[in-house]
Amino acid sequence: MTTTANQPSVHSRRALLLGGAATVAGAAAGFAAGSGGGTARAAATQPGDPMHGRETIAFHGDRQPGIQTPAPAFVSFLALDLILPDASNEIEQREILRRVFRLISDDAARLMDGRGILADTEPELAANPARLTVTVGLGPLALKTMNPGLLPSWLRELETFPGDTLDPAWGQSDLVLQICGDDRMSLAHASRAMLKDLRPLARLHWVQDGFRHSRGSQDEAATMRNLFGQLDGTGNPSGERLERALWGGENLEPWVPGGTSLVLRRIEMDLDAWDRVDRPGRDFSLGRRQDTGAPLTGSHEFDSPDLRATDELGLPVISPDSHVARSQPREADEIILRRGYNYLEPGSAGLLFASYQCDPGRQFLPIQRRLATADMLNEWTTAIGSAVYAVLPGCAEGSYLGKELFAG
Amino acid sequence: MTTTANQPSVHSRRALLLGGAATVAGAAAGFAAGSGGGTARAAATQPGDPMHGRETIAFHGDRQPGIQTPAPAFVSFLALDLILPDASNEIEQREILRRVFRLISDDAARLMDGRGILADTEPELAANPARLTVTVGLGPLALKTMNPGLLPSWLRELETFPGDTLDPAWGQSDLVLQICGDDRMSLAHASRAMLKDLRPLARLHWVQDGFRHSRGSQDEAATMRNLFGQLDGTGNPSGERLERALWGGENLEPWVPGGTSLVLRRIEMDLDAWDRVDRPGRDFSLGRRQDTGAPLTGSHEFDSPDLRATDELGLPVISPDSHVARSQPREADEIILRRGYNYLEPGSAGLLFASYQCDPGRQFLPIQRRLATADMLNEWTTAIGSAVYAVLPGCAEGSYLGKELFAG
Repeated sequence: MTTTANQPSVHSRRALLLGGAATVAGAAAGFAAGSGGGTARAAATQPGDPMHGRETIAFHGDRQPGIQTPAPAFVSFLALDLILPDASNEIEQREILRRVFRLISDDAARLMDGRGILADTEPELAANPARLTVTVGLGPLALKTMNPGLLPSWLRELETFPGDTLDPAWGQSDLVLQICGDDRMSLAHASRAMLKDLRPLARLHWVQDGFRHSRGSQDEAATMRNLFGQLDGTGNPSGERLERALWGGENLEPWVPGGTSLVLRRIEMDLDAWDRVDRPGRDFSLGRRQDTGAPLTGSHEFDSPDLRATDELGLPVISPDSHVARSQPREADEIILRRGYNYLEPGSAGLLFASYQCDPGRQFLPIQRRLATADMLNEWTTAIGSAVYAVLPGCAEGSYLGKELFAG
Repeated sequence: MTTTANQPSVHSRRALLLGGAATVAGAAAGFAAGSGGGTARAAATQPGDPMHGRETIAFHGDRQPGIQTPAPAFVSFLALDLILPDASNEIEQREILRRVFRLISDDAARLMDGRGILADTEPELAANPARLTVTVGLGPLALKTMNPGLLPSWLRELETFPGDTLDPAWGQSDLVLQICGDDRMSLAHASRAMLKDLRPLARLHWVQDGFRHSRGSQDEAATMRNLFGQLDGTGNPSGERLERALWGGENLEPWVPGGTSLVLRRIEMDLDAWDRVDRPGRDFSLGRRQDTGAPLTGSHEFDSPDLRATDELGLPVISPDSHVARSQPREADEIILRRGYNYLEPGSAGLLFASYQCDPGRQFLPIQRRLATADMLNEWTTAIGSAVYAVLPGCAEGSYLGKELFAG
């Protein structure tokens, strides 16, 4: 490391860095043309322009953004319960839900584009969206209201797994908004603006805020670390496996084309107890090294774990009860995309486990049932919240989420 | 804006951007040589290296870091109360405090340098400090314990100002650690690591977490915005005025050379009520335009407000009860450095007002008393926490904070 700047010159160096980076980004503009939801755009840059604040992700497209798009630094999951009139009046109930999706679609498109919502009182806070995304999921009641014929068998309260200590305060809701972004300010504004718009139609059930490394603090392609210090998400699929896991393919089908599902579990981690576990104990429980993330049978993070390897005593190098061994897919369908975030609040810390998969019954449940019965890490982790949502397909400009899916 | 990349190519573009920016930072290395606390360093960069995660601020120097160093994206203020033995045993009490400062100094120097603390269980989470700083302040009891002869007259519980609704849960503590950084992960790790080390010596009183715009989401030199959407901190001093305000000069003296003070107030902001105020009403209450931050008598953020200007009816353009008019210094000593952060928690949002000044009695109090009696913004803001701390001078390598200041 070299000494580069005393305090006043930090500004100058920063301006140079910003200007320089902006030019680099400008040079890279037009690198590849994209289309559909999740397309990233960068503002035309000038020296001194923000480096990434004005980068936007497109809201419109066949699929919703915020799933396959790289996970930015922050998330707010907002759970909402619908305020529905008399249950016997199905038409009016569906009309309420249409209004909800019209509002969400208009708000999300504007906010993700760096504009405020209609009649925004603080559009200044929306100006740097920093890859803001809004993703919408439906709980059982919302999908039943929309179109009972579409209800997939897995869309019901998640079973309570062995070891779960579920608090209804973090439980299933009618709707979830997943709002992600690299700037806590624009995210705070977007959450508030959307909640305000939805207030007459839905009640807030819970908010779960999470974080990863800040953008630019490390290589963005690096696997995130959780608060136990472990690399978390190494086994995520990519390419065609990811495509199939999220949107369907051989043997796997989403509940509706372009749709998928979100499982969200609030997993409390006992950091104080974890502190007392030494490095070999930690690595043995995980089946990987904490420092590199390499499986105990390998030397690099992405080496495949060899579950049959034994040591000189004939004992397995990776314990069959380690997290890695228990979470290894037994069937080709057991693939999920983990897109979790850390949470830290006074009195509670852990992981917002979020996984996307087109059919949680065949993809998520078998893995989770195995983990629940004998993952050594369970000694230090407890799920305290659990919910599942059907994720709507994306929508085209001029339309709104779910428009074509309503019954009647 | 141009379409630049669909989803897979975000990674490629990002890698290019990271590589490019790192090279720019590399080219800027050695730009200016700095010394003393608060000196910024950048790691030797290679293409693909983290962009700013390995940037460090030096802990050692005549003054503590985290005051005059530019405010990074996040803060955790940790309030601690000392666990002291029998009050009659002054020598043993001072010995406890020495141990506290030895621990803090060692931990802070390591963490700010990107190394874990001694016997760190997750050094991986310390590797990207991202301009981490640790700044230490003393409440009345801690300074009395250290050396009663040094106790400045202003170091006592802050008076309750008109309009304050103080909750002791956010009140004065014996010590405060201000931990700042651009990466929420490294900050979370640093807070936890230090609390763990201090556990036998001090009890946690409160934690106050705050945020500003993420690094790189906008020009770093830009004034931050608060959750009302206002630019917050436009009037901050710079250059020689700042030097005098923080460290003393004509007519102003710190409690000890290289020391200064921190006032921290938790100011709840009623965002729902503020939503109902239209733009002219907001601008009139503040005395500035919300969009540009310009005073109502000017056109640019840094134009001086003209408090004598009148409109065609002879009425003042800037109301004498506006925030700008009430906070204008009446005396040359009324200069403070505001270094606040926004906070947003379920059920409460607002500002962590943090100001640094060498003599709060002459610098902070007169301004605050004026604001408390007639600032129009008070209709939407309420202080719910309030505390003041004596900030120790910095320390040299091999020494620890406060070493030379102990009595006896």
